Amino acid sequence: MGLNKLVLASAVCAALSTPLQAGSELATLLMVLHENGTISSEQYQRVLAEMEASRQQEEQLKQGMQAQLDKASNVDVSLSKGGLAVKTRDGRFSTNIGGRMQLDVASYGEGSHGAGSTLGDGSEVRRARLYLKGTIYQDWFYKFEYDFAGSGDNKSGITDIWLGYKGFDFEGLSLKVGHFRDPFMLQDQVSDNNTQFTERASIDAFTAGRHIGVMASINRQHWTTALGVFGDKASNKGGTADEGWGTAGRVTWMPINEKGALLHLGLAADYRSTRGNDVRFKQQPETHVSGVNFVDTGTLTDVDSYLSLAAELAVVQGPFSAQAEYVHSRLDREFANNATFDGWYAQAGWLLTGESRPYTFKGAKFKAIKPNSIVGKGGIGAWELALRYSTIDLNDGLISGGEMDNLTLGLNWFPTPGLRVSANYIKVLEMERAEHSLDNEEADIMQLRGQWAF
Amino acid sequence: MGLNKLVLASAVCAALSTPLQAGSELATLLMVLHENGTISSEQYQRVLAEMEASRQQEEQLKQGMQAQLDKASNVDVSLSKGGLAVKTRDGRFSTNIGGRMQLDVASYGEGSHGAGSTLGDGSEVRRARLYLKGTIYQDWFYKFEYDFAGSGDNKSGITDIWLGYKGFDFEGLSLKVGHFRDPFMLQDQVSDNNTQFTERASIDAFTAGRHIGVMASINRQHWTTALGVFGDKASNKGGTADEGWGTAGRVTWMPINEKGALLHLGLAADYRSTRGNDVRFKQQPETHVSGVNFVDTGTLTDVDSYLSLAAELAVVQGPFSAQAEYVHSRLDREFANNATFDGWYAQAGWLLTGESRPYTFKGAKFKAIKPNSIVGKGGIGAWELALRYSTIDLNDGLISGGEMDNLTLGLNWFPTPGLRVSANYIKVLEMERAEHSLDNEEADIMQLRGQWAF
Amino acid sequence: MGLNKLVLASAVCAALSTPLQAGSELATLLMVLHENGTISSEQYQRVLAEMEASRQQEEQLKQGMQAQLDKASNVDVSLSKGGLAVKTRDGRFSTNIGGRMQLDVASYGEGSHGAGSTLGDGSEVRRARLYLKGTIYQDWFYKFEYDFAGSGDNKSGITDIWLGYKGFDFEGLSLKVGHFRDPFMLQDQVSDNNTQFTERASIDAFTAGRHIGVMASINRQHWTTALGVFGDKASNKGGTADEGWGTAGRVTWMPINEKGALLHLGLAADYRSTRGNDVRFKQQPETHVSGVNFVDTGTLTDVDSYLSLAAELAVVQGPFSAQAEYVHSRLDREFANNATFDGWYAQAGWLLTGESRPYTFKGAKFKAIKPNSIVGKGGIGAWELALRYSTIDLNDGLISGGEMDNLTLGLNWFPTPGLRVSANYIKVLEMERAEHSLDNEEADIMQLRGQWAF
Repeated sequence: MGLNKLVLASAVCAALSTPLQAGSELATLLMVLHENGTISSEQYQRVLAEMEASRQQEEQLKQGMQAQLDKASNVDVSLSKGGLAVKTRDGRFSTNIGGRMQLDVASYGEGSHGAGSTLGDGSEVRRARLYLKGTIYQDWFYKFEYDFAGSGDNKSGITDIWLGYKGFDFEGLSLKVGHFRDPFMLQDQVSDNNTQFTERASIDAFTAGRHIGVMASINRQHWTTALGVFGDKASNKGGTADEGWGTAGRVTWMPINEKGALLHLGLAADYRSTRGNDVRFKQQPETHVSGVNFVDTGTLTDVDSYLSLAAELAVVQGPFSAQAEYVHSRLDREFANNATFDGWYAQAGWLLTGESRPYTFKGAKFKAIKPNSIVGKGGIGAWELALRYSTIDLNDGLISGGEMDNLTLGLNWFPTPGLRVSANYIKVLEMERAEHSLDNEEADIMQLRGQWAF
Repeated sequence: MGLNKLVLASAVCAALSTPLQAGSELATLLMVLHENGTISSEQYQRVLAEMEASRQQEEQLKQGMQAQLDKASNVDVSLSKGGLAVKTRDGRFSTNIGGRMQLDVASYGEGSHGAGSTLGDGSEVRRARLYLKGTIYQDWFYKFEYDFAGSGDNKSGITDIWLGYKGFDFEGLSLKVGHFRDPFMLQDQVSDNNTQFTERASIDAFTAGRHIGVMASINRQHWTTALGVFGDKASNKGGTADEGWGTAGRVTWMPINEKGALLHLGLAADYRSTRGNDVRFKQQPETHVSGVNFVDTGTLTDVDSYLSLAAELAVVQGPFSAQAEYVHSRLDREFANNATFDGWYAQAGWLLTGESRPYTFKGAKFKAIKPNSIVGKGGIGAWELALRYSTIDLNDGLISGGEMDNLTLGLNWFPTPGLRVSANYIKVLEMERAEHSLDNEEADIMQLRGQWAF
Repeated sequence: MGLNKLVLASAVCAALSTPLQAGSELATLLMVLHENGTISSEQYQRVLAEMEASRQQEEQLKQGMQAQLDKASNVDVSLSKGGLAVKTRDGRFSTNIGGRMQLDVASYGEGSHGAGSTLGDGSEVRRARLYLKGTIYQDWFYKFEYDFAGSGDNKSGITDIWLGYKGFDFEGLSLKVGHFRDPFMLQDQVSDNNTQFTERASIDAFTAGRHIGVMASINRQHWTTALGVFGDKASNKGGTADEGWGTAGRVTWMPINEKGALLHLGLAADYRSTRGNDVRFKQQPETHVSGVNFVDTGTLTDVDSYLSLAAELAVVQGPFSAQAEYVHSRLDREFANNATFDGWYAQAGWLLTGESRPYTFKGAKFKAIKPNSIVGKGGIGAWELALRYSTIDLNDGLISGGEMDNLTLGLNWFPTPGLRVSANYIKVLEMERAEHSLDNEEADIMQLRGQWAF
């Protein structure tokens, strides 16, 4: 709109100069009348002088008005999917308000329910987040996001709270300070708004998550790199013991990265020194409603540090997309043998309505699908079919965290940009965990999500 | 403002076409001069051609400017009572930010205080809510509201979080999915901003409250109907047990519904299958500051399901309004006799300053009173006197939840739209509850509220 | 922008009147032609009449357009440091969205760490606040602010929630109702965004803090006064016991108060009747990350009431500023001897880059430093060096709350308005507290803060 106002200003001023051009007819007529001897030279000069005075007056008005219009169109307000975006025309300041709402319903079948039930059917507000983000004096940018469904029980609802600086001369370089997601694993970098399934694959047990830290990153069309040093989570409330710290880094290479075609390769590492704090890896069967973990190492107390390594692969070809990751995690323990856990997943999706899963090199991740046609304007939105296999192994030596293999079938519907309805059927193919009431059971889960993000 | 901008655009363009009209004087003069033989046909044609060229140039500018103005006035920003409302001129998108703030002070008299005191004098932030709501692609609409005074202690501050769809051809039909209030009882449908007293009548013990669910409703000038199926509350955090579910419906008939005159009749039902979850009915003596319940069944464990039925009546005639409701609730218990509780209230109000209590058929409920005159502009705002009698009986068989009859005198002052000060004097006429320290005492309560809603 | 639009409207209208002025050339020509006898009187009158008709038409358009422009420029949107400010041109309504984000990292040296460690190194989100404030019908104003980092553990994140009225005829008089900071101590009135050090001096143990109450204040260029009556905190959840209440007042005199020069003198008192509620004074060593108190009276149960008195002094001369306060607190106890605690601090700052620490008589407090030059536009921002000595004594009779003397060296950097980075080195000169593991230890603390306020 800022640009439009500029063009508008020009248009108005051009329009206002038309009396002058209209005046050119008058000048021509005057000249004709003078040439014909109808009016005297003195009369001719007198009217001409009046015309020139008018022209100068108009010119002044034009310039004053241009200045006023520049100020009037200083700020630009727009709505997007129900949020609010305001920016100054000079790009030095901006403020955005938005959020995401996710509502889940889950029903657990035999093997997970009934006699010896451990998974309770139900519904939940999965996420209810609002954010405020902005640009400050062009080079600085910040975000604050809070999850109103995620607070309580020693958890903080704070997700993102960071300040960035991008005023460097080096192309694509930026610096971030605050509480944000460590650069580890593709499926973690992709917003949960835009994941192909309602929950991330089970290796999310190895997620680095969010910490307070500082990170430098370079994002370019065909490669990215990010490296950060991190303290503890925003929810850690201090105390008499030192907090843990860690470092995480990720590099990606996208030899193909154009509209509708992608080849993405990535490597990432996450090192964490616990400084005496407890460590625990656990995961639900790719559902969140019941909150029951299928694999769980329990609290591991004497871990000095651990190092997780991840390898990423993603492909897009028109309406088809595929994505796979492998994670390996090694724990250094003081008074016990070191332990090693790992897991991987592979998933593929097909957009039945012909869209292509969009990707951005800024953060090297997938973005939100925009339907080609919109419900309510004669369209049916976008429809996507997806399939995923995932496996995780948290058994090593004396640690019996369990093992789980899942197959998930997903259907996603995007009636308009910002809206999404997802249905997931999750079949636990194998679940081995000694002393767990569902050991050797093959649970199946039907899960629905409604989501609007703005 | 959107419309204004459109009118403005037309005005500007009309104004800019005046050189042409001003040019019509010139055309007339030219014609005259040509007719008089002062200028030759050739000269006449030459100046005329210049005029036509100018006219076309101006026409182009006009159209370009119209297009630019259309874009410039695309978004409409307005403030209302301290909130923010933004919408696109085409009505396809809107975003609103608003909230409500309620501050209470309560002092408890003899029979509720002093020796054997159970009600503590004090003040509290009763509600501190902010909401964000919006329209997405015209047919979809959402609301997210959070109560910053209502979180903590296993409670979630989430009140409303829902997505609606109104793109149906059927007049007044809409669909809602999410966490919102079940359609049960008139006094629950009326926002607590707009209730006649600071707290709802004691049968609020039977409130259906809010749940995650789906609801269809039809709202028309003279009747409404709503039917929903509901899971559990947003604050329920899942677990190993299944959550409860329920269904609620409400029909209303308003044979008289015009400005200043209303006859409202309503029936509603709320059925809930507990699926093993506990049930408890309890109520404070229409005050919230101390948090002490006067009637309370305690936790009832073996309830299979319960069904509550409500009948509603409301009347408005000029500055007078009246409202009454009766609720009957029946519990099905597995290993004990079924139990039946009930209660009712009747209240009447008189707007001393002549306003009429406003009503909307959208949800079949009362709205906020708008004062005829405003404090600060020579007015005194709106003043309302109100009286209520309420009774509730939670005794049945072995369940001794108690019985309470209250009389409340209320005075409401609305200095401007959005602002409200309320004073309530509540006299507990009878309170019978075995083994309660206030059994047979007749407490009296003085309560003040300051409120601003925007 | 409102004003700009007004000026713009005038400019447009003036511009549109130019056809008339341009028409004056035509009028002159007509007159000339008529005088020369080229056109007849009838022809002259005909063209003149057409001109007059055009002029009137333009005048109407001008007025209509003026009205439309007045409406179009009704609301004014601006961004400031990443927040959002909207106001109506008539000043009757406004809505502002803003907040503050503070991130801390602290490292504790010998004497506070290592063997016998009690202070844990770490990082934290110190404050994450958003606010909404506004003007309602010109005379009323409100603020709601929530600290998303401050909730949980029986604490409410609500900081400010109040409604004010300023429609009095008496200059500088305003009334506030709600939850806000009691008028006590200069360092408490100064926003934590604008304090010279990351944490307030140790006598913050005597802070009156925020309560629900009502306050009248008069703010004038050379003096202010404020007096309030207060109930309990927003976090107090009522119950069977009465809440405490108190009253606090503050007067200040600023014989010198101009740009770059200030002499501020202040006196304040805070009285609180506990009504049986517990009392506790405690303080961390001017760091917040670890959360460990160095001085702490523990819970004092039989305190009837207490009265704290404070004396304030502040001076600004160009880039130099100084500030000092003394607080004395006396506890009346029922079954024990009365107790007396006290403390004071003195601090001085020097803005190396030549700015002056700004002050406002509205609340009689310091404001945010605005750098003369901005990072990213060739500048280095503002840099400030500061030094503080503080002492507190919580020992009296049988109460051994301890004694602490601290010296703090601070460096503040303000790259742009709204952004701040602070480094504080705190040396505990003396810490005497019987039975505390750090008794007689001289801890030293290195603390960093990143802050953006908008």
